[in-house]
Amino acid sequence: MRLRNKPWAKEELDKNPMFVISDPASQKGKWAELFNNNHPIHVEVGTGKGQFLTGMSELHPNINFIGIEKYDSVILTALERLKESDRSNVRLLNQDVIELTDFFAEGEIDRVYINFTDPWPKSRHEKRRLTYKNFLSLYQQVLKPDGDIHLKTDNQGLFEYSLESFSQNGLSLHEVSLDLHKSEIEGNIMTEYEERFSNKGMRIYRCEARFTL
Amino acid sequence: MRLRNKPWAKEELDKNPMFVISDPASQKGKWAELFNNNHPIHVEVGTGKGQFLTGMSELHPNINFIGIEKYDSVILTALERLKESDRSNVRLLNQDVIELTDFFAEGEIDRVYINFTDPWPKSRHEKRRLTYKNFLSLYQQVLKPDGDIHLKTDNQGLFEYSLESFSQNGLSLHEVSLDLHKSEIEGNIMTEYEERFSNKGMRIYRCEARFTL
Repeated sequence: MRLRNKPWAKEELDKNPMFVISDPASQKGKWAELFNNNHPIHVEVGTGKGQFLTGMSELHPNINFIGIEKYDSVILTALERLKESDRSNVRLLNQDVIELTDFFAEGEIDRVYINFTDPWPKSRHEKRRLTYKNFLSLYQQVLKPDGDIHLKTDNQGLFEYSLESFSQNGLSLHEVSLDLHKSEIEGNIMTEYEERFSNKGMRIYRCEARFTL
Repeated sequence: MRLRNKPWAKEELDKNPMFVISDPASQKGKWAELFNNNHPIHVEVGTGKGQFLTGMSELHPNINFIGIEKYDSVILTALERLKESDRSNVRLLNQDVIELTDFFAEGEIDRVYINFTDPWPKSRHEKRRLTYKNFLSLYQQVLKPDGDIHLKTDNQGLFEYSLESFSQNGLSLHEVSLDLHKSEIEGNIMTEYEERFSNKGMRIYRCEARFTL
């Protein structure tokens, strides 16, 4: 993703505490209180500009969505979208996913979404991929035992890697699609990337993964 | 695969006991004796016309290959190939894979190859797919604990299904390739199908799977 420097981003995020939670660690174990209901919580790691998150929150008013994105200039766009949409079931965290377990208690989350994450194709960068085993361990710590991970990507190498990583680290695979937009699917909300790549005729890969009990 | 009726097939197979083992159950636990060495044993289930098996046996003289194929008119072509190639490290079984554990003892096999197997796309035929859980259980019974399964197919649906089936039945995935002929691979021996489909520009899918200990 091309990053544009937006010096005003941080200030703008701070101005919107209804949508952007500046100290998520203080909410650990208390997200149901913040949302004021016991609806399931779905977290998108690397939420980017928030098209998926906003679309999903409109489609599923009875699910609480939390998007985590470390670049303030990027999450700013998600904030703008969110303000327009005026959803009460979404929050944004301008944070690094590596700190996930500081923000959520054990079993507090029902689902993790990973959409079009940076593939980090070089072997020496494997540890940065959001499906690397260390990240899977973080997800496991905050997910309910029957929670799941939903992955979408256009990147063949990342998808191959992720299938291996999931299966080698105690997750079973479900609903694997090697060409999502030629499959029979309902309720698929496209991300910015997905729209762009799919329009170019590129394949979108998708799967769900669950920790086997 | 189109089946041509060849009434002489059975007789021809019987005439070649050096290559075609007519009573494989009597060899159970004694394949090393038959091959007269302790080389690893690789079994191809649904070996078809034997192009893969013959090619592999030439490339790997220190591995013993056994091809299982239930249609006599099909395996006849494999026999003809084999006679031309005159390999001593290959045998053919004109049998049904469902009887695999009658032919091999526990841990007698090092690897199972599944190449371009019938995808049986209808849900009600799931049990016939060679990556259905019942077949995986048969492979597990005859494979060494560190043995593996190598799958190649052009069929997207079968590959999606197989990834799920492997991961849901205690196997981890390795060397997943979603476009084999655009990957860096060495020593890939093509089957008849692979050659035909790949020449048409279709993707070939491949993975390895191992039972996790």
